[in-house]
Amino acid sequence: MAKKKTNEPKTLKPEIAVGVLGSGSFATAIVKMLVENSKTVHWCVRNEFVKGAIELRHHNPTYLTSVSFAPKSIKVTTDINELVSQCEIIVLATPSIYLSDQMEKMTCEYRDKIFVSAIKGIVPKANDVVAHYLRDNFEIGFRNQAVIAGPCHAEEVAMERLSYLTIATVEDEVSEKLCQLFSSSFIKVEPSKDILGNEYSAILKNIYAIGAGIAGGLGYGDNFTAVFVSNAIREMEIFLEAIYEAPRDVNESAYLGDLLVTAYSLFSRNRNLGNLIGKGYTVKSAIQSMNMIAEGYYAADSIYRTSKEKGMKTPIIDTIYGILYEEKNAEKQFKKLTAKLT
Amino acid sequence: MAKKKTNEPKTLKPEIAVGVLGSGSFATAIVKMLVENSKTVHWCVRNEFVKGAIELRHHNPTYLTSVSFAPKSIKVTTDINELVSQCEIIVLATPSIYLSDQMEKMTCEYRDKIFVSAIKGIVPKANDVVAHYLRDNFEIGFRNQAVIAGPCHAEEVAMERLSYLTIATVEDEVSEKLCQLFSSSFIKVEPSKDILGNEYSAILKNIYAIGAGIAGGLGYGDNFTAVFVSNAIREMEIFLEAIYEAPRDVNESAYLGDLLVTAYSLFSRNRNLGNLIGKGYTVKSAIQSMNMIAEGYYAADSIYRTSKEKGMKTPIIDTIYGILYEEKNAEKQFKKLTAKLT
Repeated sequence: MAKKKTNEPKTLKPEIAVGVLGSGSFATAIVKMLVENSKTVHWCVRNEFVKGAIELRHHNPTYLTSVSFAPKSIKVTTDINELVSQCEIIVLATPSIYLSDQMEKMTCEYRDKIFVSAIKGIVPKANDVVAHYLRDNFEIGFRNQAVIAGPCHAEEVAMERLSYLTIATVEDEVSEKLCQLFSSSFIKVEPSKDILGNEYSAILKNIYAIGAGIAGGLGYGDNFTAVFVSNAIREMEIFLEAIYEAPRDVNESAYLGDLLVTAYSLFSRNRNLGNLIGKGYTVKSAIQSMNMIAEGYYAADSIYRTSKEKGMKTPIIDTIYGILYEEKNAEKQFKKLTAKLT
Repeated sequence: MAKKKTNEPKTLKPEIAVGVLGSGSFATAIVKMLVENSKTVHWCVRNEFVKGAIELRHHNPTYLTSVSFAPKSIKVTTDINELVSQCEIIVLATPSIYLSDQMEKMTCEYRDKIFVSAIKGIVPKANDVVAHYLRDNFEIGFRNQAVIAGPCHAEEVAMERLSYLTIATVEDEVSEKLCQLFSSSFIKVEPSKDILGNEYSAILKNIYAIGAGIAGGLGYGDNFTAVFVSNAIREMEIFLEAIYEAPRDVNESAYLGDLLVTAYSLFSRNRNLGNLIGKGYTVKSAIQSMNMIAEGYYAADSIYRTSKEKGMKTPIIDTIYGILYEEKNAEKQFKKLTAKLT
């Protein structure tokens, strides 16, 4: 008698139609994760040039160019309606400032789809996080949403270095599907139910990383950076509690881990932006000198206003907002901030 | 009528006789902090060579050699009895393995003195932390003790880069004196009452830093390190609660901050030790190749046994112990550990 199989091979699981919107480095990293478990990943990129380049050379022409995709493993389009109508699960991975342009083109039926945000930024048009933007503008409720969080530089995914994603969603069935889609030899998935907490923490950490960069640029050392980050995680906890009270441990990977990788890693564009400002570049010239978008810059404006509206005590956010948006002197502002840290 | 002075100049405060035991880099950094506020700092070094070199050249001959001391600002001795009898407050800053040799030479009266541990290691003879060693072997109670914690690489103190110390002691009067002695333009002092929590966290973080180094040496990246550290601070919280329950926030600088500076900084000798092991050096050869003592190595043995005795779940400590003391293969052990992290 044949031995009973206890573990079904992965390929026998029903295929989940999954797609990715976006053609930056994190979008490309997500496509790389998904082709591990899916026969075909749908991929909606920004224009025909990018589509043509991927189809011709089998890699993204601009970001994570070292990552090759087998021709059959991806189906590239520039049409969000084609993407959404063919997929059950759509991962949103554009820079936050481009999301609304894409979403507004959506004319197909989408209300039974699952939208997974990997965006980690504020939608400027809505001046709000993606979860609220989708709910308020497209009637996509939280039950049809998920958020990807956790410390995950795209560059390391490209190298298949082990990374842990946290995927927050309220429905267990959706959680299981996303776990099946993303888990691989180099990706571990932790489930969470804290959609808003994960989304806000992913946004906040970019602002704090700008701050860590400013401190470094100003000449503060490792001792100070450690104090700064230790204050930042406590401020983040206060912010998250004020936004959405939930039983969460901010020391989990999705919160503290993501803050650490962004504040400490050389791959972090937000930290690099801050570093230039600390070294004396104007905010405008620092932004112009980078060829990628530092989400923290855009987020700081909205997050600061949310903090003030809710009467929160957030000295770090206030300091960074002042430097980024009120032309305040970074050196003087950080000198003042040092008296407020503990 | 003369204008009323609201701020007395520092020099008019009664001088507190203070001394430092030890001649390594952290001891030298502490002397540097203290000469900011004291006319004379007593300094007990390990031997006549070091004493002679400091008196001749006005700097430590081996550690932090860039730091000069004005001849009148320090009084150097090699005799712990001279140090203790002349001082009201004695800062212990030897490597942990040398502390008992020095303390056992003490024949003078010392019971009204304040002993401040800056040691961050386990006393091998006692197989216990300094606070317990002093209490059990010298009848120095917790009221006559303090612990210096917080992220503070000596190399950055030498450069006068802003650093935050946490000084834990139960007596308010002692706390005020220590704050007066240590606060300066580059040192901010936070008071705490959690002597044991601060001491254990300063020890634990060295073990975790070895782990972060092993991961780096094995080729794990920034994404993983962030997950590792996020798990380490949660494990540290469990350990501290089991040792001594107290109202503490492990995200304060003395706990999380110190872990961060040790796990992430290139100045960290514990991280460097781990890195060599991760790259394939044997534990013995890695230790021999370093000219400074990695406290985490010695601590891992005692801390592991404490964890087992108290039935704690500490997978990171267990893993590092296995690699350091049971010749277990670092690559395999970390592979197993990755399944236990979240």
